[in-house]
Amino acid sequence: MKPKLRVAMAGAGFASGLHLAGWKRVANAEVVAICDPRQEKAAERAREFGVSAVFHHAAAMLAEVKPDALDVVAPMHMHVPLCLLAADRGVHILCQKPLAPSLAEARDLSRAIHGKVRLMVHENWRFRAQYRRLRSWLDAGDLGEPVSSIMQVHSSGLLEDQAGVLPQLVRQPFFAQLERLLIGEVLIHHLDVLRWLLGPMRVAAVRTGRLCAAVKGEDHAVILLEGQKRWALLDGNLATPGAPPTPSDRLELVGTKGTALFENNTLQLRGAREETVEFDLVAGYGDSYAAAIAHFATALATGAAFETDVDENLQTLALVEDAYATARPLQVA
Amino acid sequence: MKPKLRVAMAGAGFASGLHLAGWKRVANAEVVAICDPRQEKAAERAREFGVSAVFHHAAAMLAEVKPDALDVVAPMHMHVPLCLLAADRGVHILCQKPLAPSLAEARDLSRAIHGKVRLMVHENWRFRAQYRRLRSWLDAGDLGEPVSSIMQVHSSGLLEDQAGVLPQLVRQPFFAQLERLLIGEVLIHHLDVLRWLLGPMRVAAVRTGRLCAAVKGEDHAVILLEGQKRWALLDGNLATPGAPPTPSDRLELVGTKGTALFENNTLQLRGAREETVEFDLVAGYGDSYAAAIAHFATALATGAAFETDVDENLQTLALVEDAYATARPLQVA
Repeated sequence: MKPKLRVAMAGAGFASGLHLAGWKRVANAEVVAICDPRQEKAAERAREFGVSAVFHHAAAMLAEVKPDALDVVAPMHMHVPLCLLAADRGVHILCQKPLAPSLAEARDLSRAIHGKVRLMVHENWRFRAQYRRLRSWLDAGDLGEPVSSIMQVHSSGLLEDQAGVLPQLVRQPFFAQLERLLIGEVLIHHLDVLRWLLGPMRVAAVRTGRLCAAVKGEDHAVILLEGQKRWALLDGNLATPGAPPTPSDRLELVGTKGTALFENNTLQLRGAREETVEFDLVAGYGDSYAAAIAHFATALATGAAFETDVDENLQTLALVEDAYATARPLQVA
Repeated sequence: MKPKLRVAMAGAGFASGLHLAGWKRVANAEVVAICDPRQEKAAERAREFGVSAVFHHAAAMLAEVKPDALDVVAPMHMHVPLCLLAADRGVHILCQKPLAPSLAEARDLSRAIHGKVRLMVHENWRFRAQYRRLRSWLDAGDLGEPVSSIMQVHSSGLLEDQAGVLPQLVRQPFFAQLERLLIGEVLIHHLDVLRWLLGPMRVAAVRTGRLCAAVKGEDHAVILLEGQKRWALLDGNLATPGAPPTPSDRLELVGTKGTALFENNTLQLRGAREETVEFDLVAGYGDSYAAAIAHFATALATGAAFETDVDENLQTLALVEDAYATARPLQVA
């Protein structure tokens, strides 16, 4: 049996709990250290998940622990420096999305680490069970040739709840400061899913706006994408009255032979073949993190390609970049 | 009591039955004559609805019967000549959509009849009970300021059914020959509804394609519209697997205070105020024709403005024209 993969984690914030729980489900791996400038946060996570070493600085952690891999769950502006640090020490990298603040910085990073270490972007959305199932239907030809798709992401997270607070900012306070909010932080997942399901797409038109005065970036957006043979629309709004406080996805995909609809917790295939599958979205949320992490660990062990390696992910980042470059403002009174 | 409005009808095809049934429900009006080049068709409709006079030519009908109004239900290329004929005789006009084959011809018609007679375009979609209700919610402020809307029109009418026929072409054979099919003949209704609900919009992006080899025009299309403060998407496809053979509408409207969803036969308001209303779509189909006809008769009697008078309708036709001018093709293998 191969020795256990020894993993260090950089970042002890919101997503680190999901990552640590994911690593617990990988048999042949162990998170051996965690670091965070807020060392008490790191210590708390370490206690919670039985991580033996806690550090203030990533550099010290890497030097002392000498892990096989670094899991980067730190704030986005720290991704590039942390990845470069790991690459210099020959430590493979699993890095949260978005990989870098801009496409240019992500490309620079890709070049800098080339040939030194392997890097997978932790893009968990496409690992969600409902999208895996939909992809299997596409691969089996159940939908025929895709013609169009509408993906919607709505929440009321930036509308005051009954207690007078904005649930989205309670859950992820850093959302308030992001200049690139909805597309760069949230819809990046959905752009990745659409690319993955439908093949290469380009940005045809984008409109963005801001409804909530407590955030800096756009909180609603519409992105029209087109491929050579199809179009897709991505519609997001974090200030939708009547929507749940946490964003939820709705995805409709029309093909030449079948139509698929994912809504609430149900994925439905209609047309030549019919099938309905229900998903446990609460469990599925953690499962998608675990699936991405398991993919990383397995591909590292076997040498297989990462599904979301750095060059593949650059294509998703290019859509994000194009979306912002194309965006025209919608002003809502 | 005022004398009955005496109406002549030009055209005895598909829609004439719906019009005649509509006129039956207007107390103070009577269809006194019907004409069609296929005189046996006209005779059949006359028997069915108790119309006393049947003609081959509209000119002869107008000369002999001297009606107060002409209801134009003839094929679209006959609209302009029939309207001009009526205008020359001082006969007011209710004309089916699309008013003319192009915006330029509709504008010419508007100028030609100006000051002679009144013309209402029979645009029945906005008279559907579900859209009247939605409009009343908007007017009452239940939705706040509209932010976005997605309207979808899908059918499997251009996919072979189990008997190997295309249901849409059985129902309306002329669809096969239209160069401007989906947008010009079908989505024109929905463009009118969106304009009416959301205010002035312009065309931002359009993609069209053809999936069915038995038609000449586009059978699927996506139209992105934008207003100063909002966007709307219109998504149509007559070859959607799993959809019903007759097109059905789905409409979602997100505002700053509420969200409305019309799906299947149910209109739902969520947000600040919540309400759910069910509609009888089968009865509603005829009702919307009757409501448009009743509006025409009432406005003629009272002198009130037509909601869909010729100049108002030119704005919908301008969207159709812009959509075709903007359209870029999607080729589906």
